[in-house]
Amino acid sequence: MQLAKRMARVQASAIREILKVAERPDVLSFAGGLPAPEAFPVEALARAHADVLSGDAAGALQYGATEGFGPLRAWVAERMTRRGLPAAAEQVLITAGSQQGIDLVGKALIDPGDVVVVEAPSYLAALQSFSTYEARFETVPSDDDGMQVDALERLLRRKRPKLIYLVPTFQNPRGTTLSLERRVRIARLAARFGVTVLEDDPYGELRYRGPALPPVAGIEKEAPVIHLGSFSKTLAPGLRLGYAVADARAIRALTIAKQAADLHTGSLAQRAVARMFETFDYDAHLARLRRLYGERLDAMLASLERAFPEGTTWTRPEGGLFVWVQLPSGIDALELFGDAMLARVAFVPGAPFYPAEPCLETLRLNFSNRPPDAIARRLREARASRAPRRRIAG
Amino acid sequence: MQLAKRMARVQASAIREILKVAERPDVLSFAGGLPAPEAFPVEALARAHADVLSGDAAGALQYGATEGFGPLRAWVAERMTRRGLPAAAEQVLITAGSQQGIDLVGKALIDPGDVVVVEAPSYLAALQSFSTYEARFETVPSDDDGMQVDALERLLRRKRPKLIYLVPTFQNPRGTTLSLERRVRIARLAARFGVTVLEDDPYGELRYRGPALPPVAGIEKEAPVIHLGSFSKTLAPGLRLGYAVADARAIRALTIAKQAADLHTGSLAQRAVARMFETFDYDAHLARLRRLYGERLDAMLASLERAFPEGTTWTRPEGGLFVWVQLPSGIDALELFGDAMLARVAFVPGAPFYPAEPCLETLRLNFSNRPPDAIARRLREARASRAPRRRIAG
Repeated sequence: MQLAKRMARVQASAIREILKVAERPDVLSFAGGLPAPEAFPVEALARAHADVLSGDAAGALQYGATEGFGPLRAWVAERMTRRGLPAAAEQVLITAGSQQGIDLVGKALIDPGDVVVVEAPSYLAALQSFSTYEARFETVPSDDDGMQVDALERLLRRKRPKLIYLVPTFQNPRGTTLSLERRVRIARLAARFGVTVLEDDPYGELRYRGPALPPVAGIEKEAPVIHLGSFSKTLAPGLRLGYAVADARAIRALTIAKQAADLHTGSLAQRAVARMFETFDYDAHLARLRRLYGERLDAMLASLERAFPEGTTWTRPEGGLFVWVQLPSGIDALELFGDAMLARVAFVPGAPFYPAEPCLETLRLNFSNRPPDAIARRLREARASRAPRRRIAG
Repeated sequence: MQLAKRMARVQASAIREILKVAERPDVLSFAGGLPAPEAFPVEALARAHADVLSGDAAGALQYGATEGFGPLRAWVAERMTRRGLPAAAEQVLITAGSQQGIDLVGKALIDPGDVVVVEAPSYLAALQSFSTYEARFETVPSDDDGMQVDALERLLRRKRPKLIYLVPTFQNPRGTTLSLERRVRIARLAARFGVTVLEDDPYGELRYRGPALPPVAGIEKEAPVIHLGSFSKTLAPGLRLGYAVADARAIRALTIAKQAADLHTGSLAQRAVARMFETFDYDAHLARLRRLYGERLDAMLASLERAFPEGTTWTRPEGGLFVWVQLPSGIDALELFGDAMLARVAFVPGAPFYPAEPCLETLRLNFSNRPPDAIARRLREARASRAPRRRIAG
């Protein structure tokens, strides 16, 4: 097995162990990217499942088209059009969450040795997925306005990457957002160099302040951009429903990849959500969700001051699920993780999010899964009980 | 893109077009592998979904473990133990149908250029999936007792394959079953040569006559065998639920592959089926299914005599969903497909099921999806209306 594949495996195992410990019931976890269960639209989903199983069981339980259930594809196309990405239903593929969208792009596009451009840090499970196709990573640095486009352009002049992978809005893990100016420049670069952009956007609808920005996929008609979305953060992750939106040719390639991967996404889940959308006020639901998570973000930002040593900095996201913390030079977040666990608080150390040359003094905090008072209280406790800092050796 | 990958794509597109035509409402399709919708346990599934969404919504709608829902893993382990494959819950990974199990094995095991041994003909979507990982295929001929083990042994002496892919029971597309003697020999060969066997078994519980045979995975403790099962044919494919059973090390590798592929299988679907199994009489349900499909198989076998030209032969399966037809030499099944479509009858021509050197005079018939009288009547009509045979050129 190739080295990259093996490395990705080792890293995946380590993180899985961390997340397992973090999810013990006596631990306050800021580790996962879990939405708040109290915000799941349980009644509407229960009614929709019952409706579909009483009115259309033969369809909801049978094999379905690999592309997805027609009315749900049409719903996604219509909503994406309103959000700034004009699309027809034929340009939508329903996936098992946006994670599968990432994996299908890898399956359809990446041959061993192909170069994939990623932010540093980037979404861990995307790096893992691309590694299974034996991609080589080239990194472009990011700041609070997202990927640095000058560095990207220099890279595109030197290399011929197969793909540019971006989480432009409320990035995982940094929480930062690609500026409008950079969106336009990246779309134009993609068109000019003929490089596909994978715009992974599971958090786009979770904006708590500031004006919405258009999807990169909607900016430049000639740019080959594949847009991925998800219902995991806005409805419920347990349904495993996401979507890819792209031109018809890319959707065909992804559909063939999906057929080999799992034939199609669950018929019942797709029909239940499509049925629910016929009467459910999704925008009112999102407004509630934004209020809830906005409060939690505020609570976390207010608490960070007290919780971390002097010289610590952090991002100030306008939405999404994560805050990214940069510790003072020399403090290894993995060591801090051990200390925090003693206080029954968990987070994800930042190092694994880097495809190369990790910055050890970083960590990711999730704020969506717990009430704000728990966040404030437990971060204080973590600080009070923490052991003396150990410095990174060397 | 590598040639194998490109070829697999072209073939996948062709078959997708055939299946689309076949599924027009005015066509009697023997093409797909669809279970009978009238046999879905609709009420039990509806009740289980309602129960889970009223009693455990936070669990059923949240992210879940990549390995799957504990009680469902335990149920599978217990049932497989009774069916001849002793397993603990930790040896079970819940997948999105057995198709995903195939794909995860490819992702975890196959590096570009690795040799995969397959039957000729073999399950089309497995060939497609392995092609996306750039496997090279070596074929071993099959007869009515399954893969010919002498030929397999000769191959194992010459090559070092990474994987042997088998559908030992009611094979897709031939409907035939690997004999007990050959099961034992293949398990021993796998142990001796250290080659992993992928035992794909979506039809094992659908036996209409003859004694049950043990899974290849249960025969030889030292043999590295990964067993795949599915609820698609016995409960409902729209749920997308299947499972892999193997030793703990293989399950770990498949779990990491699955994490990159789609994080986990739908939480709601898993919990609903686990809940249903608490009170549902699965064995009585299977008995009904076997009666229903057994009748349809008999109707098809009885009708074949009248429907095809003299010199045609076909398999006589003891279970599963398919009969495989061998036409007289020189009659191209693809031409016959055109004739049959004029009579509004569809099937899948056999050629795409061969990874190399296709036999053009073959076709696959599904008998599970339609009532027996429709099968008999329409096969007669197809015969009556059929155009004069064209011979294969050359």
